[in-house]
Amino acid sequence: MRIIKKIFQTSRSHSAEDGIFFDKLTTILGFKPNNLEHYRKAFTHRSMNKTDEGGHAINYERLEFLGDAMLGSVIAAHLFSKVPTGDEGYLTKMRSKIVSREHLNELGKDFKLIEFVESKVSVQHFGENIHGNIFEAFIGAIYLDKGYSFCEKFIHKKIIKPYVDIDRLEGKVISYKSLLIEWCQKEKKQFQYEIYDDNGTGNLKHFGVKLHIDNKIVAKARATSKKKAEEIASKRAYFVFQSQIDTK
Amino acid sequence: MRIIKKIFQTSRSHSAEDGIFFDKLTTILGFKPNNLEHYRKAFTHRSMNKTDEGGHAINYERLEFLGDAMLGSVIAAHLFSKVPTGDEGYLTKMRSKIVSREHLNELGKDFKLIEFVESKVSVQHFGENIHGNIFEAFIGAIYLDKGYSFCEKFIHKKIIKPYVDIDRLEGKVISYKSLLIEWCQKEKKQFQYEIYDDNGTGNLKHFGVKLHIDNKIVAKARATSKKKAEEIASKRAYFVFQSQIDTK
Repeated sequence: MRIIKKIFQTSRSHSAEDGIFFDKLTTILGFKPNNLEHYRKAFTHRSMNKTDEGGHAINYERLEFLGDAMLGSVIAAHLFSKVPTGDEGYLTKMRSKIVSREHLNELGKDFKLIEFVESKVSVQHFGENIHGNIFEAFIGAIYLDKGYSFCEKFIHKKIIKPYVDIDRLEGKVISYKSLLIEWCQKEKKQFQYEIYDDNGTGNLKHFGVKLHIDNKIVAKARATSKKKAEEIASKRAYFVFQSQIDTK
Repeated sequence: MRIIKKIFQTSRSHSAEDGIFFDKLTTILGFKPNNLEHYRKAFTHRSMNKTDEGGHAINYERLEFLGDAMLGSVIAAHLFSKVPTGDEGYLTKMRSKIVSREHLNELGKDFKLIEFVESKVSVQHFGENIHGNIFEAFIGAIYLDKGYSFCEKFIHKKIIKPYVDIDRLEGKVISYKSLLIEWCQKEKKQFQYEIYDDNGTGNLKHFGVKLHIDNKIVAKARATSKKKAEEIASKRAYFVFQSQIDTK
């Protein structure tokens, strides 16, 4: 009887934990995952020394390879169609910028993926690259779980649309904040960046910003520094007012 | 009247040319292409100085970038699922071997893609890499014409299945020909490599080989040298008799 009770408890607690993981993933993904195991693997650090029944290591390192390849081809197809004037050298350079280690680290942080990492090493001991690595692994997990076309949609909706800006990458726009302030001053518009500490501490700390123009909130953003959050909010506002702002 | 006749002739001759191109492509692709323009672009050298109505260059260079990315992700996914024991470093190394310049040049030659190239520079002036470059561009054209899933199927059927052999790439099998000869001798089987010149001259020259075992043709292959054709035929025969041949 005690054994039955124990099994029942384990199974229930496992389901509850799965439920929380499932809900959090659904929020990030924007769709319901099919197989949680791919995502668990994407967040399992090698220090856990996990293996499957065949003795194969279970950790995120192989998924990094897969995710990197999927990011590479989706971004390549995007650049190819978006920049019909760009030659092979230009396209290659732009893709490198988008999938740079620094950019992937930023993405991993913004998605707060490190919260999910299972590791025997303290999170404080990881270098910066852990963020980009688990981000790539996460993309690999999406591909395994849902296939290429879903993975491509995710990359478009959650990465390319909010983060990939070709003008910025080309160096045409250095700072959206200065561009926006300049425009507000010229147009005699009132603006205010309202900053608040977001939840999280240490590596996980985030800042939120609301950008008000003429007393209306026109954009919100969250990032790992105040400066970055302001820049992202400014960029979002820029796209709202794009037709009225002259970047030339 | 003369003008009408001329239009009619031009249009008819264009269609006839398209028809031949369409038929040849269908044979290589194993399916009917939708939009021939993508494939024409994949075979247009920059020396043609072609541009579209927007003034953008029409040549295969941008398609190379796209095809390279598609090959990269399809091969990555294949290796990921095929070699569950391989870590990230292994997978990266294996992929580099498969998409090496040398290997891509071989593939381009075996598909005889250079026959389609439109150029103002003589084919004799191209270096070896033209074969690999137009092969990549051809993959890019397939992706644009039919989408990822079709492109993936093509790569599996026409490249991975006949050409990608993980044991060979790992250096476990150095020569299928010696493996096969050894096996024939051990099993007291008669074997004969029947070689014949194939069509084509110069860069386009191909050799064909039929491998007979016990007076039955067990495999055929074509390649740019006798040695390569023998090796490919041996590999094909190896896969026929695989269960009986011990490579350990």
